[in-house]
Amino acid sequence: MNNPIERSRRERDGLGELDIQAGALWGIHTQRALANFPATGRRVPPLLIGSIAVVKHAAAVTNAELGFLAPDLAKAIVRGCAKICEGGPQIDQHFPLDALQGGAGTSTNMNVNEVIANLALIELGLKPGDYAHVHPLHHVNLHQSTNDVYPTALRIAAIAGVRNLADSFAKLQGAFQAKETEFQAIAKMGRTELQAAVPMTLGQEFSAFAEAIARDRWRTFKCEERLRLCNIGGTAIGTGLTAPRAFIFRIIEVLRGLTGMGLSRNENVIDATANADAFVEVSGILKASAANLAKIAGDLRLLHFLGEIRLPPLQAGSSIMPGKINPVMTEAVMQVAMTARANDGIVTECAAHGTLQINEFMPLIAYALLDTIAMLETTARALMRHIEGITANATRCAEYMADSPTLLTAFLPKIGYERAEQLSKEFAVAREQNAALTLRAFLVLKLGEAMVAEVLAAPNLIKLGHTES
Amino acid sequence: MNNPIERSRRERDGLGELDIQAGALWGIHTQRALANFPATGRRVPPLLIGSIAVVKHAAAVTNAELGFLAPDLAKAIVRGCAKICEGGPQIDQHFPLDALQGGAGTSTNMNVNEVIANLALIELGLKPGDYAHVHPLHHVNLHQSTNDVYPTALRIAAIAGVRNLADSFAKLQGAFQAKETEFQAIAKMGRTELQAAVPMTLGQEFSAFAEAIARDRWRTFKCEERLRLCNIGGTAIGTGLTAPRAFIFRIIEVLRGLTGMGLSRNENVIDATANADAFVEVSGILKASAANLAKIAGDLRLLHFLGEIRLPPLQAGSSIMPGKINPVMTEAVMQVAMTARANDGIVTECAAHGTLQINEFMPLIAYALLDTIAMLETTARALMRHIEGITANATRCAEYMADSPTLLTAFLPKIGYERAEQLSKEFAVAREQNAALTLRAFLVLKLGEAMVAEVLAAPNLIKLGHTES
Amino acid sequence: MNNPIERSRRERDGLGELDIQAGALWGIHTQRALANFPATGRRVPPLLIGSIAVVKHAAAVTNAELGFLAPDLAKAIVRGCAKICEGGPQIDQHFPLDALQGGAGTSTNMNVNEVIANLALIELGLKPGDYAHVHPLHHVNLHQSTNDVYPTALRIAAIAGVRNLADSFAKLQGAFQAKETEFQAIAKMGRTELQAAVPMTLGQEFSAFAEAIARDRWRTFKCEERLRLCNIGGTAIGTGLTAPRAFIFRIIEVLRGLTGMGLSRNENVIDATANADAFVEVSGILKASAANLAKIAGDLRLLHFLGEIRLPPLQAGSSIMPGKINPVMTEAVMQVAMTARANDGIVTECAAHGTLQINEFMPLIAYALLDTIAMLETTARALMRHIEGITANATRCAEYMADSPTLLTAFLPKIGYERAEQLSKEFAVAREQNAALTLRAFLVLKLGEAMVAEVLAAPNLIKLGHTES
Amino acid sequence: MNNPIERSRRERDGLGELDIQAGALWGIHTQRALANFPATGRRVPPLLIGSIAVVKHAAAVTNAELGFLAPDLAKAIVRGCAKICEGGPQIDQHFPLDALQGGAGTSTNMNVNEVIANLALIELGLKPGDYAHVHPLHHVNLHQSTNDVYPTALRIAAIAGVRNLADSFAKLQGAFQAKETEFQAIAKMGRTELQAAVPMTLGQEFSAFAEAIARDRWRTFKCEERLRLCNIGGTAIGTGLTAPRAFIFRIIEVLRGLTGMGLSRNENVIDATANADAFVEVSGILKASAANLAKIAGDLRLLHFLGEIRLPPLQAGSSIMPGKINPVMTEAVMQVAMTARANDGIVTECAAHGTLQINEFMPLIAYALLDTIAMLETTARALMRHIEGITANATRCAEYMADSPTLLTAFLPKIGYERAEQLSKEFAVAREQNAALTLRAFLVLKLGEAMVAEVLAAPNLIKLGHTES
Repeated sequence: MNNPIERSRRERDGLGELDIQAGALWGIHTQRALANFPATGRRVPPLLIGSIAVVKHAAAVTNAELGFLAPDLAKAIVRGCAKICEGGPQIDQHFPLDALQGGAGTSTNMNVNEVIANLALIELGLKPGDYAHVHPLHHVNLHQSTNDVYPTALRIAAIAGVRNLADSFAKLQGAFQAKETEFQAIAKMGRTELQAAVPMTLGQEFSAFAEAIARDRWRTFKCEERLRLCNIGGTAIGTGLTAPRAFIFRIIEVLRGLTGMGLSRNENVIDATANADAFVEVSGILKASAANLAKIAGDLRLLHFLGEIRLPPLQAGSSIMPGKINPVMTEAVMQVAMTARANDGIVTECAAHGTLQINEFMPLIAYALLDTIAMLETTARALMRHIEGITANATRCAEYMADSPTLLTAFLPKIGYERAEQLSKEFAVAREQNAALTLRAFLVLKLGEAMVAEVLAAPNLIKLGHTES
Repeated sequence: MNNPIERSRRERDGLGELDIQAGALWGIHTQRALANFPATGRRVPPLLIGSIAVVKHAAAVTNAELGFLAPDLAKAIVRGCAKICEGGPQIDQHFPLDALQGGAGTSTNMNVNEVIANLALIELGLKPGDYAHVHPLHHVNLHQSTNDVYPTALRIAAIAGVRNLADSFAKLQGAFQAKETEFQAIAKMGRTELQAAVPMTLGQEFSAFAEAIARDRWRTFKCEERLRLCNIGGTAIGTGLTAPRAFIFRIIEVLRGLTGMGLSRNENVIDATANADAFVEVSGILKASAANLAKIAGDLRLLHFLGEIRLPPLQAGSSIMPGKINPVMTEAVMQVAMTARANDGIVTECAAHGTLQINEFMPLIAYALLDTIAMLETTARALMRHIEGITANATRCAEYMADSPTLLTAFLPKIGYERAEQLSKEFAVAREQNAALTLRAFLVLKLGEAMVAEVLAAPNLIKLGHTES
Repeated sequence: MNNPIERSRRERDGLGELDIQAGALWGIHTQRALANFPATGRRVPPLLIGSIAVVKHAAAVTNAELGFLAPDLAKAIVRGCAKICEGGPQIDQHFPLDALQGGAGTSTNMNVNEVIANLALIELGLKPGDYAHVHPLHHVNLHQSTNDVYPTALRIAAIAGVRNLADSFAKLQGAFQAKETEFQAIAKMGRTELQAAVPMTLGQEFSAFAEAIARDRWRTFKCEERLRLCNIGGTAIGTGLTAPRAFIFRIIEVLRGLTGMGLSRNENVIDATANADAFVEVSGILKASAANLAKIAGDLRLLHFLGEIRLPPLQAGSSIMPGKINPVMTEAVMQVAMTARANDGIVTECAAHGTLQINEFMPLIAYALLDTIAMLETTARALMRHIEGITANATRCAEYMADSPTLLTAFLPKIGYERAEQLSKEFAVAREQNAALTLRAFLVLKLGEAMVAEVLAAPNLIKLGHTES
Repeated sequence: MNNPIERSRRERDGLGELDIQAGALWGIHTQRALANFPATGRRVPPLLIGSIAVVKHAAAVTNAELGFLAPDLAKAIVRGCAKICEGGPQIDQHFPLDALQGGAGTSTNMNVNEVIANLALIELGLKPGDYAHVHPLHHVNLHQSTNDVYPTALRIAAIAGVRNLADSFAKLQGAFQAKETEFQAIAKMGRTELQAAVPMTLGQEFSAFAEAIARDRWRTFKCEERLRLCNIGGTAIGTGLTAPRAFIFRIIEVLRGLTGMGLSRNENVIDATANADAFVEVSGILKASAANLAKIAGDLRLLHFLGEIRLPPLQAGSSIMPGKINPVMTEAVMQVAMTARANDGIVTECAAHGTLQINEFMPLIAYALLDTIAMLETTARALMRHIEGITANATRCAEYMADSPTLLTAFLPKIGYERAEQLSKEFAVAREQNAALTLRAFLVLKLGEAMVAEVLAAPNLIKLGHTES
């Protein structure tokens, strides 16, 4: 194909003229932004760009329906939007802006407007930059403002993201539940504060992991509710200035249809434009899931270290120690969790220090929130595969149990706290004299075989509460 | 009354003997803890101590019902619990431990056990320390462990706290709504990114504050749902070891009755003992409210600086500048919000790095979460009174509006973006030559009185969208 | 003595009249502030109040020297300052304000001014509130502003704090070094990523703790350099408005004499008034020490769990499990470290969002920074005593070593990576068939006694590098 | 050229065989890692990879010198290292791993080893994967471990980074100083807590910015001292196991020569391997600079809003409001500062929760620290260019001053606080009756022209302190 953008072209805006980089589908506003912002190496998330394109799509359809946009123009714009939503490296390269841009997202909105306009122009057989026919602002951005498009698109992107995430948590929960069943008969010592506590089963231990992830699934799923109220139609500050009333009421319906999401218009559009607390709330909720992942990863690593479970070997663990295999997946998960937490701090600081009618730090809020969602999702899936390969070492579990004086707790209903404490000390002394003495043997000596056998029977140790009278 | 604790007494535990400080109702476990932990000046929140006492109350009643505790003993214990719940400096002084204690809350649980035992002993006409009759562990702590008592009590304390907080947010919302009504006819300039944007009313600006606080009220109210599932009965690690089955199933009902809260037993008690993510989630949600308070406080301070509103004068603002009055309340609110955010970071780090069957950092989780709840509550009430005294300066609002070239945005539906941008530049030039030239006068010159009058009519500027065709 | 403040008195300021609480040495500005700010339960640190009193002392002396204040008045003021510096509950009760106050510290400065004035009045035989004779602003605050007094006092308080802290780190370092020597001959397995790595001695492990704390000592000591440049004399914004030139140049010398600290005047007083980055830097540096404490506490807890060392038993660890002793001190230390980190976040957020000529969040900066310093200091001392009681279990150390295939790394210079990896696998298989087979026995079989004996000789394992050719 | 890696090849390690992706210079360890870790979209910083290559270079030279590596082999390896250091997309594509990898950096070290080996093989005319001749571990990694290579390389990368950063701060300081001079005669109102305070010059305001950046330059420069002590030679845990003594002592000298940095060997190599506090300290110090940038950006934005200065227009600020230009650069800077702060939290959490002999979270520490350094550097340079374009509006400055009752502070030495406060109130009343009344006119009426003229003379307002007696 004859590439219509192979040569540089010149564009003009209120600040003057500028050459647009050859090969670029973007226009002057993007070109300026590219020069303005310090490069941090963070790209605007493609999911966000796609979501903006969806909003543009809805606007074009609505404007056409209401007679504000010629049908063929609208059609060409919609095709451009569709191309952006498809994504891929061919289209992604036309969104070159750094994510940490000033201006509440104006540059990214402009970038999308410009690329859509040029895609539409090409679609219509015209030349990129020939904005008299399809204009980034007059046609693509018609009846919109960055300040209603951008937050609306972020909500759409975040909903898409949390749906995926909830799904990945569901699968991770399944993996833990399978292990819960597999390990249900393996008795072991529970531990509190890195000290042996009282008995449980390895299955129970994994059931707690599964249950935590079940909550993660639920809380992630519920995030969607917090994201549904959009401010599209509010234009610059939520008053809808310059937008026709019919447009405002119609576009949200079109958007609902396009996305299949239960979006609706916030009754107080000014609030929905000015306040970013919904994003803080969602980020804060997701952070609870990140904490769960970190906690579970830490536990798995520790149980692997103790030899009660065996994590699947993934790669050589050392460039120097032969045969060393490290629990690298758990460490990767912990690092993801720490990063998610840092992102949450960012989202909060942005929201807390926003000013008046729009939060000027929306680009960073969007980046950090979508980054967290994506990271958690990919991490949950990676962890799931890892969990599936875990095996248990019942012997090792039993060894630890045989050696734990806190097993005496199980005798409390029969012998009381002081007697148990006394036996604990006597055992310590006896053990020092005879390293081979097991706690069980010692207890049989002191309490008789019958009582010991009854109390230490696995079902009695593990079932919820006893039925002594 | 002859003070039964005026003299020091000696107690003994597994580690040996120790003198108990004269005047203290606590016992040896508290006395040791007092010496052990570095003093950070943070007291265990009285609300938490009262909530532990409520759990002890429920346990005594349940144990008595099921025949595990003599009725008179249970009665004396219940009286002790009641005294602690009443609180006040007389009783608070017997809970001297630093909040940042190791041991997952054991020391605080012990402290409550000991004080209750001694209060019960006094009630029974016996001497403090005479534990043969009422024992902190055998009677007060019967069938419990720190690890089920402490998290359960934290849930009760947090529920009580969020109820109060939701109430205070409701009142704050009311204060903002009253101002929304009061200021509904005052037109002013909206601002984005510290630049004049497009017109709105001061009432609309306050409606966004009210709406944000309405969400705070709602999200705070919904926190209760996340806190209801208790692990009481699970003892050390959630297996209920040493607790009678009947006790486990009954105590939660008694507790529900005592608290009037919709508490229930988590089906997976091991999970409820091991995982602290519910507290992270609640803390994360409350942090969204803290961000709202900060954002609103910042806006109010800025509007006061601009003279569009006047915050009530509270105190002299300078030790040197006569007549200077500072917006001190808004600054206090911002500092509270930053502290709440820091607390959230603490709660998250604690939960993420907890180990195996109980989170060893529960004391810090409890401290930080209850601190945030209490701070937000007292802050919301203080802010509410402050809001009530705000007055508006309509003249000042009008002055800013008259001077803002972005008013031109309102003409877009009639003249388009490029023409508007052109006029904006021309006005800048004209203004430089004639400082007295107002934007309106300039526009009349260029666009005619009729169009200007129509577009700039206040109702047209402010209503949601226009009805041009 | 006839208490001169037993009855309430009435005072007046620019906002009107107010009754001062009976028994209070403070005046109307404090009384207003008491009503204004939400109570968070945080008291202004006494060390800060004492440091403000030192600045007032210096101002009185300077003003008297230069003839701006009558000698007897100055003398009475100095006596009042001294009383405040002595501290104690009698005087502390007169500083009732919450730490999270708005207004850049004005309320606390006013509080100190008022208490000093009233103490001076009493000293002179006059009645509190008789400000015609000693006025909080005209005399005590003469030629000062909150904005130069408060940051200067914070610097003095922080220097006093870091000196103490450096001293406590020195002692903690000593405790670790004593253990380094004590444990120098105990060979053990080093571990990386919770996996056995290669051999070392327990003494070496403790030497790393000692070295980290040595850096803490040094970095804490060096903080003083960052705190020395004061803005006293700059009054409201650093221009020194209303202060005589002679006063500005003299007071810093007096202050240097009074404190014995190497204080000097920042050449750019406007900068020193406006910017709080020095406090962020100090807080950030101290956070590195907090991270060290957390890391070391975590390691000690883990080594105790593994049984290689034994932490001193401090208290019963469970209300239900007899004989359970938890590593509570290490957990308390970790919680302190997390709190210090949260404080650092607060200090940074305050500094980053400060506005123009004074940081309005100075009260929170001061609270968080001094809180961190004090917490770390008390924690370092508590940890030091705990370290002194640590004992080693050489047998246990040896057992772990005997069982670690990564010992094979020591053979690399003789047999190469692939051979070693091969032996590692063979040993795993052999071990599965014969659980009693030790790695050493296996290696003797494969490599001969001579090589094994040479490579595994403790000095060869531990010394830095080998001398094979 | 005939591409030697165009086809996939098969490699083997301790876990089995695997196909290496066609076109890749990496080997099996990288290939596994690529599959293992959740993709977060974060690439290992090229600066870190280059620094690892420098360490490999030094190792090859040292090993050759000491006779452990054949000269031609060493030469080929050194060529490979050089290619990596040159960087560029051609070579960068061979380092595909995600930055958030588990395993303390092993995967990245392996990746570098493998690419160097294959580059060396190609250099020698052999085929990639022909490791019998140049082996990633036996030759490239000879006498090293990830655990000494990676932290050493991070130190080198960080030193290179902070040098650049210090340079960029120096230039930024220069830009502020130029404005300080340019604006030195423009009198304006200083402001505290968003309220007019007392007079200053705009030059003084910029001098405070310059001074803060001067400290940033200094503190950044001083970071190098904290980064110099390397643990290279310590191998796995700092004991140097498997490394010849001569190698350990020599490589650091070679490295010093190669880098031109004042590197030296930490005397306690075990400490240098285990503890990451130096990185926390550096990150914490850089965070103070980030706070300065945020504070300054916020101030500039506010002064621009007030019209006292004019920031250079960079781009259209709105997709809807014609002529609106936003202060986008300042907002970008604020977002960078928030991100740097979040990175600091990450570094701290990683260091605090590291375990035993190596910090397992080194990859995240490295990523976050180098990200902060790079972001601050590019931001400082972008801000510098922006500062250069700032212009002042002296008229506007004067208008604000004429309208500020706190100007009365300047009269304190002559009329006292109460009289001034009284005049302040009277002026407020008078002004309400006559909006045209200026403060100066009012004061002339009350205090006489002579006094007013003298006090309000610009030099008297601004010089440090007065010389009244």
